[in-house]
Amino acid sequence: MKPQARAEDVQRVCEKIESLGFRAHPMPGAQRTAIGITGNPGAIEPAEFESLPGVAEAIRVSKPYKLVSREVKSEDSLIRVGPSAKLENRNSKLETGNSEPAAGDGDFDSRASSSDSRTSSFIVGGPELAIIAGPCAVESREQALAAAECVKKAGARLFRGGAFKPRTSPYSFQGLGKQGLEILAEVRRATGLLIVTETIDPENCDLVEEYADVLQVGARNMQNFSLLKRVGRSRKPVLLKRGMSATLEEFLMAAEYVLSEGNYNVILCERGVRTFADHTRNTLDLSVIPAVKRLSHLPILVDPSHGTGKRDKVIPLSRAAVAVGADGLIVEVHPQPERALSDGYQSLSPGEFESLMREVSAIAGVIGRRTSLA
Amino acid sequence: MKPQARAEDVQRVCEKIESLGFRAHPMPGAQRTAIGITGNPGAIEPAEFESLPGVAEAIRVSKPYKLVSREVKSEDSLIRVGPSAKLENRNSKLETGNSEPAAGDGDFDSRASSSDSRTSSFIVGGPELAIIAGPCAVESREQALAAAECVKKAGARLFRGGAFKPRTSPYSFQGLGKQGLEILAEVRRATGLLIVTETIDPENCDLVEEYADVLQVGARNMQNFSLLKRVGRSRKPVLLKRGMSATLEEFLMAAEYVLSEGNYNVILCERGVRTFADHTRNTLDLSVIPAVKRLSHLPILVDPSHGTGKRDKVIPLSRAAVAVGADGLIVEVHPQPERALSDGYQSLSPGEFESLMREVSAIAGVIGRRTSLA
Amino acid sequence: MKPQARAEDVQRVCEKIESLGFRAHPMPGAQRTAIGITGNPGAIEPAEFESLPGVAEAIRVSKPYKLVSREVKSEDSLIRVGPSAKLENRNSKLETGNSEPAAGDGDFDSRASSSDSRTSSFIVGGPELAIIAGPCAVESREQALAAAECVKKAGARLFRGGAFKPRTSPYSFQGLGKQGLEILAEVRRATGLLIVTETIDPENCDLVEEYADVLQVGARNMQNFSLLKRVGRSRKPVLLKRGMSATLEEFLMAAEYVLSEGNYNVILCERGVRTFADHTRNTLDLSVIPAVKRLSHLPILVDPSHGTGKRDKVIPLSRAAVAVGADGLIVEVHPQPERALSDGYQSLSPGEFESLMREVSAIAGVIGRRTSLA
Amino acid sequence: MKPQARAEDVQRVCEKIESLGFRAHPMPGAQRTAIGITGNPGAIEPAEFESLPGVAEAIRVSKPYKLVSREVKSEDSLIRVGPSAKLENRNSKLETGNSEPAAGDGDFDSRASSSDSRTSSFIVGGPELAIIAGPCAVESREQALAAAECVKKAGARLFRGGAFKPRTSPYSFQGLGKQGLEILAEVRRATGLLIVTETIDPENCDLVEEYADVLQVGARNMQNFSLLKRVGRSRKPVLLKRGMSATLEEFLMAAEYVLSEGNYNVILCERGVRTFADHTRNTLDLSVIPAVKRLSHLPILVDPSHGTGKRDKVIPLSRAAVAVGADGLIVEVHPQPERALSDGYQSLSPGEFESLMREVSAIAGVIGRRTSLA
Repeated sequence: MKPQARAEDVQRVCEKIESLGFRAHPMPGAQRTAIGITGNPGAIEPAEFESLPGVAEAIRVSKPYKLVSREVKSEDSLIRVGPSAKLENRNSKLETGNSEPAAGDGDFDSRASSSDSRTSSFIVGGPELAIIAGPCAVESREQALAAAECVKKAGARLFRGGAFKPRTSPYSFQGLGKQGLEILAEVRRATGLLIVTETIDPENCDLVEEYADVLQVGARNMQNFSLLKRVGRSRKPVLLKRGMSATLEEFLMAAEYVLSEGNYNVILCERGVRTFADHTRNTLDLSVIPAVKRLSHLPILVDPSHGTGKRDKVIPLSRAAVAVGADGLIVEVHPQPERALSDGYQSLSPGEFESLMREVSAIAGVIGRRTSLA
Repeated sequence: MKPQARAEDVQRVCEKIESLGFRAHPMPGAQRTAIGITGNPGAIEPAEFESLPGVAEAIRVSKPYKLVSREVKSEDSLIRVGPSAKLENRNSKLETGNSEPAAGDGDFDSRASSSDSRTSSFIVGGPELAIIAGPCAVESREQALAAAECVKKAGARLFRGGAFKPRTSPYSFQGLGKQGLEILAEVRRATGLLIVTETIDPENCDLVEEYADVLQVGARNMQNFSLLKRVGRSRKPVLLKRGMSATLEEFLMAAEYVLSEGNYNVILCERGVRTFADHTRNTLDLSVIPAVKRLSHLPILVDPSHGTGKRDKVIPLSRAAVAVGADGLIVEVHPQPERALSDGYQSLSPGEFESLMREVSAIAGVIGRRTSLA
Repeated sequence: MKPQARAEDVQRVCEKIESLGFRAHPMPGAQRTAIGITGNPGAIEPAEFESLPGVAEAIRVSKPYKLVSREVKSEDSLIRVGPSAKLENRNSKLETGNSEPAAGDGDFDSRASSSDSRTSSFIVGGPELAIIAGPCAVESREQALAAAECVKKAGARLFRGGAFKPRTSPYSFQGLGKQGLEILAEVRRATGLLIVTETIDPENCDLVEEYADVLQVGARNMQNFSLLKRVGRSRKPVLLKRGMSATLEEFLMAAEYVLSEGNYNVILCERGVRTFADHTRNTLDLSVIPAVKRLSHLPILVDPSHGTGKRDKVIPLSRAAVAVGADGLIVEVHPQPERALSDGYQSLSPGEFESLMREVSAIAGVIGRRTSLA
Repeated sequence: MKPQARAEDVQRVCEKIESLGFRAHPMPGAQRTAIGITGNPGAIEPAEFESLPGVAEAIRVSKPYKLVSREVKSEDSLIRVGPSAKLENRNSKLETGNSEPAAGDGDFDSRASSSDSRTSSFIVGGPELAIIAGPCAVESREQALAAAECVKKAGARLFRGGAFKPRTSPYSFQGLGKQGLEILAEVRRATGLLIVTETIDPENCDLVEEYADVLQVGARNMQNFSLLKRVGRSRKPVLLKRGMSATLEEFLMAAEYVLSEGNYNVILCERGVRTFADHTRNTLDLSVIPAVKRLSHLPILVDPSHGTGKRDKVIPLSRAAVAVGADGLIVEVHPQPERALSDGYQSLSPGEFESLMREVSAIAGVIGRRTSLA
């Protein structure tokens, strides 16, 4: 749409699209609104739309992904996490004029945010790097609160911690479940940190959605299409981790599943891929960051903890991730790594996380980004 | 347990295990019954059990997988698919004296088998190779019936066809859903072929279970632990495909999830892994067949269609799969491959499938196996 | 060229090619002779050649490989190994009317064959599978002769054994060098087995060439282009192993280097590729066999010893290799595997090799091939 | 050796080692001299050495690599490239008290350095990052000089350019050969840039060694052990690129080959590994940098040009490489990338290289390193 297009122009185009039996995806940006069309079995005649008022141009997208593509939306998406002004999101997406239409509408996520007066929202994809830190799994109230205090003090704005843990062995600790979610809610109340936690299947999403500020979809579920569709119908932002052997196209197509259901608030995350190399648990593929930036408007984070699987590699690779242009980091930090129930060997101690924050802040400073420290 | 152990001896050991707060998994074999113990946080003193009547020995399993392991059950598992004598499975697993305690109990799967007088059961893992053939997706009643007639005529005993299709793109054909399952039921009634079809999430399993003789878990869901637990609570056999980048240990641990929930009827399936090699869609790892045979009692099939992704490689790799020792094949066959809605480029024509059957029957003959042809 | 083309027609075409400043590669086959052209910077006008007497057609080859391609030579190449009638190879390649113009010309390889009245030549790529067996490294006269006697008795026709060993560590046993070659010559005299041994650099090739019947280029040297060019100037057949992470195209291009220097006697060999999978040392990629057969006229063997790195996988994968269509096997056999100086864990004992021969002979029998046993 | 150990103490230990039939490798450092022992078939009794004067301790190295290991030499190696004071290197290594005993001794490399009064040496592994830039291949005098002028102006201190090019196809441009080396010598005379160029086989090394300041061993030759041994006998520093599918251990063992022959001046280089990922030509494995730093005293560079194979990824990955702790970069720069005879799609233009230098200088500044710019 043209920059000066009015809400009713957008509305008219959407109606036209839907009258043809297709699905319209209006995605407002700072300058102008893009409208994606999906559900069309073949090519559509651009001229049908270019004559409508307010339409700037109609572009045929050649890639298998559409809504995630820069061809559809050229400017970077900014994903708002946490409580946002309700009025902003109350009405139609089309009227809001911003790119995070659905995030954090307070109507339904009362446990998540209504009473958290200390919690403010955070924009992923903007100049401040999103630093998400916390333990692999929520193990106890004490552990979670201790971890949260220290990562907050060091400068993190979001807290990670699994209540439901996908584990390779059925006999490994599978997370505290709902009790873990309650603890995460308490962490938010106590610290104001926003909560990122994993959802493991569509049914489970009903519960996790009530507590989380960001719904994490793990690497093993990147092509769990039932789960992708379910989080696509959520109003919470989604952190989508790259699968262990996912190509870039498969990764973007997984995000496309979420967007195609109407949830445009997807944050991608590189967490290492599986290769023959055995000096790290996975091979962190930092080249995917500029590759995503070229093809897609979605922000992308890096998980150096799973990406390397070794504590002493986390800080150097965090520096590299920021230098390469990632929009943030998700890092495992445990108050006592040696006692962690899972992934202790890759979790940073509080002191190490402070070093990480100092070092990545310095890097951020010279490439036009920042952290909460500077 | 000793070969001469009585049902009450087995019962007593199970009670002892459960009185300690652990879980008992009796797995009857032709010679003797093995009882797996799970749920124990640490090592258990073998002497506690070896003194009980009927106990032959108590073995500490060092591998992360237990129930799938040959250390727990040394003889090959035979998995019965399809309608079986109800009396056989009616009562306690412990009294049946065979290794497929739960398969095909007619009580709940009325759609699946009660009225299919032509359908007889099939044993996977025995001397006759399990040949599963059919289209990638059920596209229509006509297509499915035509495919079924031709694969039956050529010698297949089981029919494959997806009603729910996990597709990389949200815009690709996702299967006919419940209508596809109805068609599969008709295929069984019309041909007597047993039905293998995919289930894609725990909720979906409730529906698929009513129709399928074998529940397929696809490669992308190999570590969808919610789905693994759900099929583990089913009484239908499970065909578990190896994930695209799953190590052997992860593959066996995925099966362990199913067994640990009480369903011991797992059929493994190698379908190619992801590598740098680009002359086939995936790299079929036939060495995993003898590796599985060494570590586990479960049968394993090969999918040369997905394993190569190219029609002209399917027959040679099928020969190789049988020669290496696989317990069967799952092959895509389409009445008109060039018109298939999915995977047409890797589907065999009816005539090609007949060639495949002739060639693998000849190989089977010289290594002590057979097909329905000979 | 047309089937009835005379030697002088072939000669005339070659002269024409060379008069244009290009290089001519006449490759005689059973039916007709193909003439490859290399050295042309761009496309050549086919009409320039099609008007010459005896020319059937001029085909532009679109693939990066030319001489190895079926487009240039549609029928399978048969590679003669060992002493051949001298008269046959004495004169111009163009007059010989067979496809192994240079192999075994007795003029220069006196050590290799002149006095070996017991040694007869062998055709790789014909109905009889090429079975090459022997120890990883020649360790002593006694070990080599013992190994040779047992593999000969079991039915092998060629003997493998390294005199120069490329080893990952500079501190590992590097082979006996020239003394190893002398022992190999003795093995040939004593048993009549043809000798396959590795050459590790261009200079070293001068020496190895005097002793070997087949020059092996190892996986680590598949893109050692200096060595490829050197063996391309040899008159001995070359066994070229696929590199650890070589695509099919790179593999064929490596063979193209050898052919482009004038040695058309290349035998390819799949020996496993490097992947994430850790249950075998390498992942044996049997799908490359039909893929090579489709694109190239060169024969291809399989090395199940390096391809799996585990003794108990060698026999099943040998069966599979023959079933998939390989032209033979190269297998490590050691009289006392547990005492081998290298690769003992993957070497078969004499008894195991006898089993292998029996099993692959049975498979060969049902797919229209044979071994020396049957 | 103890810090205060005298040259004669070192000498005595070396003599003792050699009297036992082993090989001594004295490696002087800033603080103290380490002496590696190789050639011992089994363990040696430490007490035999600890009683000698000047010996601080005798450590048994458990890793398969010895001389490259931090266990043998704990401080970082500094590798001097280019002309160095002749007196410094004239005499025995043991007396020099520095860690680059052999580099640039003027006696034999007259073409390389004797008349290049403008050329000063450079230390790889010190605070200043080693920036090596230039075209993939030397194509002409004009191209090379133009490239050299622009990379020098932008801040590079070393020039790369291939005279002998290992190419996948025998029909691709293979480099200008000796003429290319002459041009490189002219580049050095004209600009003072130090020359890094590839040697492709042992015989070829005799020639390249006369011209190059650093002998490059390419990824395809990482396990060309004949070449490794040959450059190990050179007195020029060696730039050793990681093989396409080399594990870290194999990479370090390849370096060990060079050191074990007496050349301790090895510079490692990560250039991407082969994986399933297809958005870049190779997958740059930056985690190997801290992994090498932990295990070895050798410096390591990153090649973002081959590591990504895409021009637009070179700058972001260069920033990341410096941030992760690499000791420098080797980058392809071509005066007119679109006209390059090889690798043009991954070569930077002069302007892009200037941007790269500015950006990596900024990153270097915040992690305690620097470039020639700052």
